[in-house]
Amino acid sequence: MSFRSGRHFLQIPGPTNIPDRVLRAMDSPIIDHRGQDFARLVLDIFAGLKTVFKTSADIIIFPSSGTGAWEAALVNTLSPGDKVLMFETGHFATLWFQMATQLGIAAEFVPGDWRHGVDPEQVENLLSADRGHIIKAVAVVHNETSTGVTSRIGEIRKAMDRTAHPALLMVDTISSLASIDYRHDEWGVDVTVACSQKGLMLPPGLGFNAVSAKARAAAKTARMPKSYWNWNEMIANNKSGFFPYTPATNMLFGLREALLMMQEEGLDNVFARHARLSEATRRAVRAWGLEILCLNPEEYSNVLTAVLMPEGHDADRFRELVLQRFDMSLGTGLTKLKGRVFRIGHLGDFNELMLAGSLCGVEMGLTAAGVPHKNGGVLAALDYLSADNTMRETSRITARSA
Amino acid sequence: MSFRSGRHFLQIPGPTNIPDRVLRAMDSPIIDHRGQDFARLVLDIFAGLKTVFKTSADIIIFPSSGTGAWEAALVNTLSPGDKVLMFETGHFATLWFQMATQLGIAAEFVPGDWRHGVDPEQVENLLSADRGHIIKAVAVVHNETSTGVTSRIGEIRKAMDRTAHPALLMVDTISSLASIDYRHDEWGVDVTVACSQKGLMLPPGLGFNAVSAKARAAAKTARMPKSYWNWNEMIANNKSGFFPYTPATNMLFGLREALLMMQEEGLDNVFARHARLSEATRRAVRAWGLEILCLNPEEYSNVLTAVLMPEGHDADRFRELVLQRFDMSLGTGLTKLKGRVFRIGHLGDFNELMLAGSLCGVEMGLTAAGVPHKNGGVLAALDYLSADNTMRETSRITARSA
Amino acid sequence: MSFRSGRHFLQIPGPTNIPDRVLRAMDSPIIDHRGQDFARLVLDIFAGLKTVFKTSADIIIFPSSGTGAWEAALVNTLSPGDKVLMFETGHFATLWFQMATQLGIAAEFVPGDWRHGVDPEQVENLLSADRGHIIKAVAVVHNETSTGVTSRIGEIRKAMDRTAHPALLMVDTISSLASIDYRHDEWGVDVTVACSQKGLMLPPGLGFNAVSAKARAAAKTARMPKSYWNWNEMIANNKSGFFPYTPATNMLFGLREALLMMQEEGLDNVFARHARLSEATRRAVRAWGLEILCLNPEEYSNVLTAVLMPEGHDADRFRELVLQRFDMSLGTGLTKLKGRVFRIGHLGDFNELMLAGSLCGVEMGLTAAGVPHKNGGVLAALDYLSADNTMRETSRITARSA
Amino acid sequence: MSFRSGRHFLQIPGPTNIPDRVLRAMDSPIIDHRGQDFARLVLDIFAGLKTVFKTSADIIIFPSSGTGAWEAALVNTLSPGDKVLMFETGHFATLWFQMATQLGIAAEFVPGDWRHGVDPEQVENLLSADRGHIIKAVAVVHNETSTGVTSRIGEIRKAMDRTAHPALLMVDTISSLASIDYRHDEWGVDVTVACSQKGLMLPPGLGFNAVSAKARAAAKTARMPKSYWNWNEMIANNKSGFFPYTPATNMLFGLREALLMMQEEGLDNVFARHARLSEATRRAVRAWGLEILCLNPEEYSNVLTAVLMPEGHDADRFRELVLQRFDMSLGTGLTKLKGRVFRIGHLGDFNELMLAGSLCGVEMGLTAAGVPHKNGGVLAALDYLSADNTMRETSRITARSA
Repeated sequence: MSFRSGRHFLQIPGPTNIPDRVLRAMDSPIIDHRGQDFARLVLDIFAGLKTVFKTSADIIIFPSSGTGAWEAALVNTLSPGDKVLMFETGHFATLWFQMATQLGIAAEFVPGDWRHGVDPEQVENLLSADRGHIIKAVAVVHNETSTGVTSRIGEIRKAMDRTAHPALLMVDTISSLASIDYRHDEWGVDVTVACSQKGLMLPPGLGFNAVSAKARAAAKTARMPKSYWNWNEMIANNKSGFFPYTPATNMLFGLREALLMMQEEGLDNVFARHARLSEATRRAVRAWGLEILCLNPEEYSNVLTAVLMPEGHDADRFRELVLQRFDMSLGTGLTKLKGRVFRIGHLGDFNELMLAGSLCGVEMGLTAAGVPHKNGGVLAALDYLSADNTMRETSRITARSA
Repeated sequence: MSFRSGRHFLQIPGPTNIPDRVLRAMDSPIIDHRGQDFARLVLDIFAGLKTVFKTSADIIIFPSSGTGAWEAALVNTLSPGDKVLMFETGHFATLWFQMATQLGIAAEFVPGDWRHGVDPEQVENLLSADRGHIIKAVAVVHNETSTGVTSRIGEIRKAMDRTAHPALLMVDTISSLASIDYRHDEWGVDVTVACSQKGLMLPPGLGFNAVSAKARAAAKTARMPKSYWNWNEMIANNKSGFFPYTPATNMLFGLREALLMMQEEGLDNVFARHARLSEATRRAVRAWGLEILCLNPEEYSNVLTAVLMPEGHDADRFRELVLQRFDMSLGTGLTKLKGRVFRIGHLGDFNELMLAGSLCGVEMGLTAAGVPHKNGGVLAALDYLSADNTMRETSRITARSA
Repeated sequence: MSFRSGRHFLQIPGPTNIPDRVLRAMDSPIIDHRGQDFARLVLDIFAGLKTVFKTSADIIIFPSSGTGAWEAALVNTLSPGDKVLMFETGHFATLWFQMATQLGIAAEFVPGDWRHGVDPEQVENLLSADRGHIIKAVAVVHNETSTGVTSRIGEIRKAMDRTAHPALLMVDTISSLASIDYRHDEWGVDVTVACSQKGLMLPPGLGFNAVSAKARAAAKTARMPKSYWNWNEMIANNKSGFFPYTPATNMLFGLREALLMMQEEGLDNVFARHARLSEATRRAVRAWGLEILCLNPEEYSNVLTAVLMPEGHDADRFRELVLQRFDMSLGTGLTKLKGRVFRIGHLGDFNELMLAGSLCGVEMGLTAAGVPHKNGGVLAALDYLSADNTMRETSRITARSA
Repeated sequence: MSFRSGRHFLQIPGPTNIPDRVLRAMDSPIIDHRGQDFARLVLDIFAGLKTVFKTSADIIIFPSSGTGAWEAALVNTLSPGDKVLMFETGHFATLWFQMATQLGIAAEFVPGDWRHGVDPEQVENLLSADRGHIIKAVAVVHNETSTGVTSRIGEIRKAMDRTAHPALLMVDTISSLASIDYRHDEWGVDVTVACSQKGLMLPPGLGFNAVSAKARAAAKTARMPKSYWNWNEMIANNKSGFFPYTPATNMLFGLREALLMMQEEGLDNVFARHARLSEATRRAVRAWGLEILCLNPEEYSNVLTAVLMPEGHDADRFRELVLQRFDMSLGTGLTKLKGRVFRIGHLGDFNELMLAGSLCGVEMGLTAAGVPHKNGGVLAALDYLSADNTMRETSRITARSA
């Protein structure tokens, strides 16, 4: 690419912008991973992570991408041929399903239209129908990064509870953790899958599992072969601040700093900020006269917004023009949505003026690309953001999560 | 300040945003300033600087702020009681005048209204009237950072030439160098004063003088006491890549990287970018119905825009609100302009979407502060920026500089 | 730990000191992993890696530790119950064996004394005895990090060739790659296992497999469940510079820089430097009157030296004292060797005076801990290092590798 | 230079090794130097500096090298033609004298042999002889960086007191501050001159003056022209955390971190460490059979040791060889000492093993260069360092400073 002045606008829905504080924390000489300084670092991190996952359960940190954390969730709790319910909410749900299938798990994939989240009622019906309790686990993507749709985990939990079905609940929070309210313990999640490069504001390279006692019990009889992903040795070693194999030390330096930043901002403020910036984005999209992919307002994602291109206009051509002219990366449409949507990431280390600049880039890009639209999008967003919505959003978020 | 997520928008007219590449180059172990690696660094830097100052003359690098480079220009060329013509274009011209006075120089300060640059005709008249050639130097601020007015150095040179007056021409390019076209040799400047923290995209800490042969000749008889600022030993030592006293090594690491970046972008592209972004800013200001401080369109600054607040509204209260609500620093009104203007810096490592975000911040701030304005500013800027003005601006700039 | 001035001496045998250049390269804003800049980065890296692995075969980069790369080697090539020959050269060989067993592979673990490498003759005998070709793979640790013993891969390959046995050859080069000469293609290795945090001078977080055509053929029929570690999708995506799941982008920034540094130094110079520094270390150990764990001089490791403590002296107590008094981390004795050896890492971004400081730390530590020894160790090392051994070592290394 | 692996050993007596923590603190986005965050930074720094200078007086921070701080000391307190006593302790004292002369001050330069510090008795005699109190100031270099000789400021103060002479006492602590005990208030110093790149562990770029009430009173009548160096405006602006001209913001980020590090280590521990490492160095020099330049053990510098080369051996040729072979920079002999001494810096962010590595480099260099010496230097140093001298050194230092 030719020389570009100023900062690139990285508006893909992850990896997200890494705060300078986190980059600097990682830019430190490495230390002995068998020494006491390291152990203190690790114990600090686990304490911080528990507040983010809202859990008192064990959390496991893998040197891996989020995909590895998916695999860990499956191989620790299941045996070959076990039946798992999965839901086609979009590209990433599909990938997780394909992984389960590849691993020899009998995953049932409930079809979806990529514009809705998982339907709690459908979960209830499917589990109720499973009188023999053949289904071992229900696996849901909390925030589907390919579509900008957030499934309602609390309601899904309640639906499961109503059936008294013993299936485990596994939730992928890869693009939701630390951006959208999430409650591992309160929502009775058995395995939470997460990663470093979204709300946690780190580079990719860490995968997480938070595991309930029920999940650990299931692990005792699970017969999928496993070694790298094995929870037991991890949990045992972590107690004293160590790992069974070499951890990604510099990523842990960054994680400690990111957790500190979250504590300074306050997790509720983090969530309210994401809510505020996403609402501004949706107002812009509507004012442009474009369509938000997500059809159910209750399921709008506070992390990203996927926008449908008008018929006859290619989203990737638009994205390419925006990149060339305005040095902004937008998210591409994945598989089924290729060329049909672009995605605006508004998560992580982000604020009002960064969003404003991003929306200006979209609006100028629509003009430059000749995409039919009205120019009022930015103005609608500014209108919303110039009012002081902090308080309002905080209460809305709290209400919705309850 | 409470925790702020995302990037701060630093829109003061300098120090400017330091590119990550420059920060990383400075974040290096220091080296022996008497060794060969250091000498190579220094010789590289001088070669690069000559292209930026557009000169083949000597350039001196001081470990100092730009204020030090002002002092160096005066004490190397003048003797106590020497008469110098200076022009009240704004706050910084006034400070330079005060410095000259403090140093015992008989500076004459031609009054100005802080809304115009130096008038070439007036220079011609004043020098013509000085039949005895008592005036030893004419000192002009190229871009007055307090007002956003750019004086026309090329025309001032021509005016001086018409009088055949032997006075030295000293030009402060503190906020113009590497942002606005500047030509030390072609414009016959004798001493160019510059610094690191504006167009050169570095932290503050380096001051520069570029000195003509005529200035060096003047230095031979100048009797102002001097040691730190003495050009001679500097120039002598610099030939082999060394300094007479310890240089600011890590700043030099950064300077080499900044010069490399400019070479990659191309100096003409740097100028065209500044022209394009400043024109967008002025369009926004006009669309808001606000007044640009600079009255002469030929003297609009491509570096910053000073905006007059409507009567009865305090600019600093507005700036404070913008800082608190939108995490953007705008420039304050200085002395005579205190509370009456705010300044938008649009220089250095900067691009379209950063500007768009900044203008959105101003527009939201005006709304939030209850400052009477129309909301079309951002839209006017986007309208201009979404057209591809690159070519147009490049030719405009070239024409104007000629 | 109380405040320590100056640099910590990190003399564990990995993770190794990360060069500032690599840390700075990683300290960069993240980029879109689906964009063209990223693809160029990845293709550059693969080109560089091939020169380090000395292969034209496919290389796979996992976001994982080296342990993950072990698992990848096994699950891509084998089926449950397959027989694999492994050799007890030390702690890490034992861990790899345990992993294989955990994964349901019928690993046969040839006992060893932790003081010798794999015996080529024994490999030949075991394979010759396997008339039915039941053994699917021979898995060897090139440089056993727990003992400082380097197995002779070239000779093992020749031994295998003599039997014409079709077993795959898998080699763990976790602590040898880019420090000791290694030749994936020439030595007919089928799967090379490697990681980022040793000779490659990066933080932990990347695992590598280099895979021969024969290994890829074996993968077609291998029935171990796998998804994250699956080579096929990786190789397919990598062709165009992309990955099937989110890669560890900032680690890749660092890897590109590390490969560039190796190219600047020259791989043969890297090997010669490791040989020179390790020989100096061994001379120091002998002069102290202490015993090197490795018994066969042909198998001395150029990466680390494990030193036996005199009877009645605890190595960990000694290490703790060295850490407290001299701020140096030495490697601990693992499992069978706990308390009996300490390990001096002399690999990665390292030089003569860093080694000299380290050996001084050991010598002072021995004195301070009251460990019986002679004080001539440092002097013996300096004596060797002050002669110019560059040429000599280069030829020795080349001869030995052939 | 060809590629060098590992860390360079920077053993010149300043600029010193910059700790990673300081480099990282400087590697931060710049902030508005007229905003409240900046003011807090500045007020923190002044509080920290007062503990390092051991003063409650005003301290001024210039964006300059230490040479600028020399000039500031002179021009703020003196008038043209004023008589000042200066002492030829070495190269830097000579430069300060030349500066004073250049500035039009009637400096008297008391000759010296470059092997002794300033003689308190001589100060007493010279002041006693000045019945008319023509001498306005006594200017002394605390630690002469070119010779490794430390003048006894406390005793000089007492000598001055005995004469009841009103001359100001100016002390250059450029290479002593924060490495050797120094007491601005207790020793009745009027102007302390300091800089950033030695004991303060920063890059060059900041100069300091600490100024007594007596010095400020003198400044009221001083008639040397000055503007950049003018104390008054500085002190006035600093009260609220601001500066009269743009400060070197990123250097201040680093300074805050360096002050924090000193506070963590404890200033007395910093001094004891310097004492311990310098004593080890001197023992090495003596064991090599070489001569320490400083003749009076009471004046040995804890910051650097200048070593005389045996007749017929060129120190710079030796230094060059050490640089080429062992990647260590040693200090050169300056002017009168050119080729006759090399200097070993042992100050700043430094510890036992770094020193040990450095001494090994000198010892190997002596061998490689064929310089006649005994090889016991390193051993003598290790012998001293392996005993726990912390307590002993602390008390020695305290005693000596009293």
